Amino acid sequence: MSTDIRLSPGDTIGILGGGQLGRMLSLAAASLGLKTHIFCPDLNSPAFEVANAFTVAPYEDVAALEVFASACSVVTYEFENVPGPTAALLADRLPVRPGVKALEVSQDRFHEKEFLRSAGVQIADYATVDSDQDLTAALQDFGGEGVLKTRRFGYDGKGQVMIRAAADAVGAFDKIGRAPAVLERLIPFDREVSVIVCRDVDGNCDAYDVAENHHEHHILKTSTVPANVSAATAAKAREMAISIASSLEYVGVMGVEMFLSGSGENEVLLVNEIAPRVHNSGHWTEDACLTSQFEQHMRAVAGWQMGSCTRHSDVVMENLIGADCERWPQILSEGNARLHLYGKEEARPGRKMGHVNRLSPKSE
Amino acid sequence: MSTDIRLSPGDTIGILGGGQLGRMLSLAAASLGLKTHIFCPDLNSPAFEVANAFTVAPYEDVAALEVFASACSVVTYEFENVPGPTAALLADRLPVRPGVKALEVSQDRFHEKEFLRSAGVQIADYATVDSDQDLTAALQDFGGEGVLKTRRFGYDGKGQVMIRAAADAVGAFDKIGRAPAVLERLIPFDREVSVIVCRDVDGNCDAYDVAENHHEHHILKTSTVPANVSAATAAKAREMAISIASSLEYVGVMGVEMFLSGSGENEVLLVNEIAPRVHNSGHWTEDACLTSQFEQHMRAVAGWQMGSCTRHSDVVMENLIGADCERWPQILSEGNARLHLYGKEEARPGRKMGHVNRLSPKSE
Repeated sequence: MSTDIRLSPGDTIGILGGGQLGRMLSLAAASLGLKTHIFCPDLNSPAFEVANAFTVAPYEDVAALEVFASACSVVTYEFENVPGPTAALLADRLPVRPGVKALEVSQDRFHEKEFLRSAGVQIADYATVDSDQDLTAALQDFGGEGVLKTRRFGYDGKGQVMIRAAADAVGAFDKIGRAPAVLERLIPFDREVSVIVCRDVDGNCDAYDVAENHHEHHILKTSTVPANVSAATAAKAREMAISIASSLEYVGVMGVEMFLSGSGENEVLLVNEIAPRVHNSGHWTEDACLTSQFEQHMRAVAGWQMGSCTRHSDVVMENLIGADCERWPQILSEGNARLHLYGKEEARPGRKMGHVNRLSPKSE
Repeated sequence: MSTDIRLSPGDTIGILGGGQLGRMLSLAAASLGLKTHIFCPDLNSPAFEVANAFTVAPYEDVAALEVFASACSVVTYEFENVPGPTAALLADRLPVRPGVKALEVSQDRFHEKEFLRSAGVQIADYATVDSDQDLTAALQDFGGEGVLKTRRFGYDGKGQVMIRAAADAVGAFDKIGRAPAVLERLIPFDREVSVIVCRDVDGNCDAYDVAENHHEHHILKTSTVPANVSAATAAKAREMAISIASSLEYVGVMGVEMFLSGSGENEVLLVNEIAPRVHNSGHWTEDACLTSQFEQHMRAVAGWQMGSCTRHSDVVMENLIGADCERWPQILSEGNARLHLYGKEEARPGRKMGHVNRLSPKSE
């Protein structure tokens, strides 16, 4: 499909996936006078409530996808595991942004690493693992340590085994279901940072300030901006993210996670992974910037000019996970906090229910 | 109905009226995990697109109102001319916020002026006009000048006649359809300012910074914050607005328009009118404050604690009226601008199609 389609206000953006990211994308689109149509198999999708239209069907339902395609001017997605045939079917009919290539790369850790290396950014050493013998060989190369990760469908720490000693390696390949995997060299990193980068259909790129992320139980808990990194490292992180988006000929917003080790002049950045969508570690942009990542993504996907990534305030974003959301009355009483809830009914453990952005005057 | 009902996330707020104000209220509610149900007779209401549910029916449809009432936990409105019987029917069944008293007062200019005088705020002299003789007598009292305004259903300059000379008075009462009216003494005001005030169910009041408003063809064109007024006048304006909200035992956000004459220590404020709802001159809060007037209203109506009215940036809001909205691509290219479009299809002259907030770093 033509890559230069540009929408007008009133046109419809299709979104694959109906979770909180789709919901926040729909809200951002509505502020711009754009319509959204959500496609999601789950009848209780939070995004349905705020979209102009929605389709409840499996991602493999060809007839439903064809009706969906005919109702939209362009399609985007809120999750990277869109089935390949689904993306291909849609891409035959209308522009799929950020792009099919971004999906292919991010759905397979090995392809992702090969791509990142080709894009010239630094990443941890890695080796493919398709058998116990592969694992043994790779561990020997990496000093007996490493993180074993399935190539596909891993998120929030799922499909991963940490190997720090010989005993950890026993049965490790079984633990991930003997699925095709990669072993990553263990990086003694101090911090995780991320950059939200955006690119428009004309190839213009920009990036938000670097966020410093803290995880609990493998789930993002807080993102703090500005990150406590040197100016040189901050600039380097943004450059790396922009370089990745450019190499992918990406259209929209992407999250780039990086490991940071050392300090001061010895800070070293390694890209961990990319997420070809709006990203949890970019939720702070909604209240600390004039243009949020959600608006930025909708603008880029619509073929519109992007807004400024400038930040007007310092901010700490806290995820409200499971029962955390019961603290909403206290959060409302905090003068510098803005509460975001996703409209999910059941607060299951580990489920992302909302987030809160706490602002303070800009420090730099 | 009980005045202390407090909603939980997931509960539904009913909104009478489906225009851009209802739309922006719905978007703000969604961010807080609250649902909205819009009631509006117009099938093409902009707010329907982003609400959880909507009812298309006349405001006089008792059966439809009863179903609506049973679907909501509380009801608010986006326009002040809600028919009295509609408000009364709903108020028998569930809380109507800001309140029936606020509606009664603001629907009739004479009642409004009587109330404002009783609340102790300064307003222009006025007299009721129910005949040509009344008009002649009132003009004599006010030096032959005045503004003749219908008591009910006036907005954006409609239902008004300016009388500056004897010739203007001829046929003036006919021009407003011989409807019950008031003559206001002509005030040689220099500027119009407004204050967005909010009050919660516990009686806590707060107000946003004063905005300076510029009109074109009797329609608001820009609101600038901070207003070019003395600190004493700014404080006085906020005090007056808070005093009005308190006197009405108001719950939610209210717009208070004021005339300002003189300068420096000689600045004099007179309240022009109140709007018992979110207000066009408060649209700047969406991008220059952590808590917008829309979120503030939804929080108060839900029985929740209000957020901070603190402003983090200077801002000029420009209304996009009629064909103004065709400038959207240029507005997107301005780095300090945030575009808001209301999803209306037809850009008729005089129709509010959207607005833009242009931010700059805070000057004070």
